[in-house]
Amino acid sequence: MKSQENKLDVAIIGGGPAGLSAAIYTFRKGLKTAIFAYEIGGQVAKSGDVENYLGTKRLPGPGLALVFREHIKMLDIPLYEGVLVKEISGKLGEFKILTNDGATYLSRLLIICSGRKPRKLNIPGEERLQNRGLSYCAICDGPLFRNKKVAVIGGGNSALDAALSLAIYSQGVYILNLLPHFTGDPILMAEVGKNSKIKSIFNASATEILGENYVSGLRFQEKTTGKIKTLEVDGVFVEIGQVPNTDFDRLTQKNERGEIKISQDCQTSVPGIFAAGDVTDVGYNQIAVAVGEGAKAGLSAYNLWIKKFA
Amino acid sequence: MKSQENKLDVAIIGGGPAGLSAAIYTFRKGLKTAIFAYEIGGQVAKSGDVENYLGTKRLPGPGLALVFREHIKMLDIPLYEGVLVKEISGKLGEFKILTNDGATYLSRLLIICSGRKPRKLNIPGEERLQNRGLSYCAICDGPLFRNKKVAVIGGGNSALDAALSLAIYSQGVYILNLLPHFTGDPILMAEVGKNSKIKSIFNASATEILGENYVSGLRFQEKTTGKIKTLEVDGVFVEIGQVPNTDFDRLTQKNERGEIKISQDCQTSVPGIFAAGDVTDVGYNQIAVAVGEGAKAGLSAYNLWIKKFA
Repeated sequence: MKSQENKLDVAIIGGGPAGLSAAIYTFRKGLKTAIFAYEIGGQVAKSGDVENYLGTKRLPGPGLALVFREHIKMLDIPLYEGVLVKEISGKLGEFKILTNDGATYLSRLLIICSGRKPRKLNIPGEERLQNRGLSYCAICDGPLFRNKKVAVIGGGNSALDAALSLAIYSQGVYILNLLPHFTGDPILMAEVGKNSKIKSIFNASATEILGENYVSGLRFQEKTTGKIKTLEVDGVFVEIGQVPNTDFDRLTQKNERGEIKISQDCQTSVPGIFAAGDVTDVGYNQIAVAVGEGAKAGLSAYNLWIKKFA
Repeated sequence: MKSQENKLDVAIIGGGPAGLSAAIYTFRKGLKTAIFAYEIGGQVAKSGDVENYLGTKRLPGPGLALVFREHIKMLDIPLYEGVLVKEISGKLGEFKILTNDGATYLSRLLIICSGRKPRKLNIPGEERLQNRGLSYCAICDGPLFRNKKVAVIGGGNSALDAALSLAIYSQGVYILNLLPHFTGDPILMAEVGKNSKIKSIFNASATEILGENYVSGLRFQEKTTGKIKTLEVDGVFVEIGQVPNTDFDRLTQKNERGEIKISQDCQTSVPGIFAAGDVTDVGYNQIAVAVGEGAKAGLSAYNLWIKKFA
């Protein structure tokens, strides 16, 4: 264990927009800050073009994540990268963080910004064929499917984004959507509509991922007729939303969706633990909102630090 | 008055970070959107270096405002610039906006993001000498005081920022602070501390701005001794905070500080009117927070539009 003198004022768990923004605030306020990030940028690094975050115009997700990294580096904010937090324990003034490399860190305050991870379909074949043609990240794995046929499951912005980026490489893209219409932004829906490589299938419920060692197809039920059909595809991309990343956190109260409950100033149910961004119940999973919430959490942590430890 | 067919889905009042972010969201969701902005960037355009807004690294305020403008132009979002909203009236589905050029616009929904304006000292000489050596914007007017002596009144980040930017041009800068210490970020306090051109005066209360036609001095009371003293300066910069810009809005409920009261989803007391950023009671007057709140207001307006007008 690190010695007492190495105790942090604030440990920030997560390297997405919320965590990085929180770190900018606590660090510039003079608090001894460190970011514990499995990956800088979080879900941003796995996104397609982003044009709704004011000030960075239009950038591919990985490019925006790189700009975020450069910002943190410019300010020289301490960063433990590639590190996964396994457990948090302790209380206000003496929290303990256990990481996947076996190290323990002490911190007076915590800010949890651990974001979300992909929701699973929970259908036969999904577990077995993961990384064997079944993927939760079109941006990461799309280029592997050059000139192949793929299917995207989902109907919101991330599914539309995935289909558009896959259409660039692949031979053809099916989008399989449970609802009779998409639920994404009109701009994206229009782009998908006019892309001749993309074929939309509505009212369709995926029932099984097929394949021996690699994905060879996708079985689904037509909800209007009850019929079971099969698509021959080499890849399946699951884009049906996310769930909060809170496996390491048995301390804070969650709501019925597993999101950390926060007050308007990003305080959790545990004194000294703040939270921000997609892991919380803030309800708008957007980069802009996460950056704003991170700033609030950082300032709230600073205000508590001033009261208790200055 | 514009005809009914020209009715907007959402009128956004204010061109600061909150308003621009809200506009990006409603416009990309396909709503007929227009921004009414006296000035793009709002207070950002009058700020010194900004380095706490994730993704734009370090930029002078006017440079960041320019980047914001480029983003809005890239997306082609309709913008009435240089326009001041004088009055809002009506109700959900049929709001009316009167501008300073006598035009009237109709809109189904409103998002108020009108920000803040400088707080005044309310001491003798202030009104009379405004723009005659007395200023509320060091970034705008600082270069006029090359090789002259100036005083900044205030002790927070904006006062420290002002002093640092004024030190570049002027012969010398006093900072007059009511408290026995500054209340800004440690980074800024350290920069002010090591700048030999800046002299800090604590526990000092400004009592009068002196000068016949132009500022010639500043009178203040030493709070520890009760003595009245005079500084000979050619310019005085007032940086003691801001008050919300709500002269045009007699519709929404305000709190005791005059801020528009909003719910977590940026809804005001009036159905169909949303608000975001510094004009509200959100409590953190930061660019990052305003951008996040603007995104929330935009999405909330869209959700209501879907229910009522889609």
